Amino acid sequence: MAVYTAVPAEALAIFLERYDCGQLVSEKGIAEGVENSNYLVETTGHDGSGHRYILTLYEKRVDPADLPFFIGLLDHLGARGCRVPLFIADRAGKRLQELCGRPACLIEFLTGVSVTEPTPGQAYAAGQAMAEMHRAASDFGGSRPNSLGIAGWAPLARSCGDGLDGIAPGLEDRVGQELAHLESAWPHQLPHSVIHADLFPDNVLMLGEQVTGLIDFYFSCTDIRAYDLAIMHGAWCFAAGGEAYHRDRGEALAAGYQSVLPLSADERAGFATLCRGAALRFLLTRAYDWINTPAGAIVTRKDPLAYLRRLDFYAGADAAMLLGAA
Amino acid sequence: MAVYTAVPAEALAIFLERYDCGQLVSEKGIAEGVENSNYLVETTGHDGSGHRYILTLYEKRVDPADLPFFIGLLDHLGARGCRVPLFIADRAGKRLQELCGRPACLIEFLTGVSVTEPTPGQAYAAGQAMAEMHRAASDFGGSRPNSLGIAGWAPLARSCGDGLDGIAPGLEDRVGQELAHLESAWPHQLPHSVIHADLFPDNVLMLGEQVTGLIDFYFSCTDIRAYDLAIMHGAWCFAAGGEAYHRDRGEALAAGYQSVLPLSADERAGFATLCRGAALRFLLTRAYDWINTPAGAIVTRKDPLAYLRRLDFYAGADAAMLLGAA
Repeated sequence: MAVYTAVPAEALAIFLERYDCGQLVSEKGIAEGVENSNYLVETTGHDGSGHRYILTLYEKRVDPADLPFFIGLLDHLGARGCRVPLFIADRAGKRLQELCGRPACLIEFLTGVSVTEPTPGQAYAAGQAMAEMHRAASDFGGSRPNSLGIAGWAPLARSCGDGLDGIAPGLEDRVGQELAHLESAWPHQLPHSVIHADLFPDNVLMLGEQVTGLIDFYFSCTDIRAYDLAIMHGAWCFAAGGEAYHRDRGEALAAGYQSVLPLSADERAGFATLCRGAALRFLLTRAYDWINTPAGAIVTRKDPLAYLRRLDFYAGADAAMLLGAA
Repeated sequence: MAVYTAVPAEALAIFLERYDCGQLVSEKGIAEGVENSNYLVETTGHDGSGHRYILTLYEKRVDPADLPFFIGLLDHLGARGCRVPLFIADRAGKRLQELCGRPACLIEFLTGVSVTEPTPGQAYAAGQAMAEMHRAASDFGGSRPNSLGIAGWAPLARSCGDGLDGIAPGLEDRVGQELAHLESAWPHQLPHSVIHADLFPDNVLMLGEQVTGLIDFYFSCTDIRAYDLAIMHGAWCFAAGGEAYHRDRGEALAAGYQSVLPLSADERAGFATLCRGAALRFLLTRAYDWINTPAGAIVTRKDPLAYLRRLDFYAGADAAMLLGAA
């Protein structure tokens, strides 16, 4: 990702005056997150000891009308002990601002790095952190529809059109068959919750095997709770190209999750279907981006077929392979 | 600028073990500098108090064979009190490393921000910092040819071909006439030095009116010393589009420079010519990038005509307008 909106240091210094954060001492545009502009900002701090923040300007991908939902959710989770970045209030208590013509927020900076090849211990810790987040969200009053949930997949597939077969011969048919299967098999009755919906390793900050932060909640929405774990399973438990399933990571992820929130028999029974759905969701959004991004563009296109391979795997998997013994 | 090479946190943690810098606690890709990949890296520090570094991986634009020159130059300048980012040595004294298949260096992080609209006070301080850098460089033994100096402009113009007229009708002729003028008028006899050659506001870190760092020396080379000030004059003393010359900034820049290194009568007499050359150099490199960057690309193309306007201005300017009274 890139920085889309340049924020002059002079404008940022004035912007920061409304916060109790001291003087601006550093501003670096960072390449991170969904399609927003992000800066790592350092100030002297109100006590002169130095503080870091993330400044986010919301570009086209985030609907400003959704920002109160995200702000309220992270407030709620933070108050219940989850390590999530809090939106900082200015002296008047305001958190949603405008800067350089964009909706903008100053956000807590969290240390930690994103792992690329999770160890089972890291998968366990991350699964546990997701379950703690789900538990903390259980009494959150807000809700937001999942525009990339099962109801959105057929329109998304249609918008890819015959571009799917351009990615891999027969892919359009394969997607159609998978959609038909999922529409009949989808476990709609499973418990719903606010979910993160994009908890890839990128979005989990860790130090060793400790989770120091869950970030980038801009896809968070209301959907089947175990579907969040299914998304995470696909993102954490395979080689990046989807060629190999790491069963040890899958079992550790599930054990970590269940150390806080045990899965019910129905959730276990539906889990492989949820994983197929998650794989189809990322296959389709990657395919859409692939078809609509010029090959020469600087933005890296992610390979849709890495999720076709996961889909193939999940179509032949059972709960024990994915989650370990009940 | 973007991050071209992804550095997994696991690989970075292992890389940092050879330095006396503690454990990795944060890694953010930053959008900065010439075409390198840059990360802002935070570690626990050897005393646990936290340290920040810039990690740079050198991509195609920097020739690895030039890195010892840059490292040696910044060492030399730093030892003479210039605020420049030092290349950090590992425990074996090695500063040039390899990471993810690229030449890579760990570099000192400096606080400060880049101004967008310099005040005269900021222009004074920046001019002074450049002169201090020139003075400190005077006994530096290294040298590096300027591939973007006057000898390079005619080939660069030819490589743009009729693309110049596509940017503005008649531009190819105008560039040809300017080249002919500069080749006859260029003050080759003026004192040479190692120069920065790209000291735009982006590359000067400031806190208020204090310079906290000169950065991004990857164009530094041996050329006419006052040409460095001419480049700076074009970059600091105009509205971004080149429409308006801010004489107060020009005079302040020159006064700051001359508080350390007074310009000789010959340097004053040649200064407008040097400014025309500097304007042509950025006109040509921007034109080249404009012609060779697809309009839809994420990389922002900088307007070549902003430097044609400066060129027009300098063609009618004298030393008093540019530098103030002698």
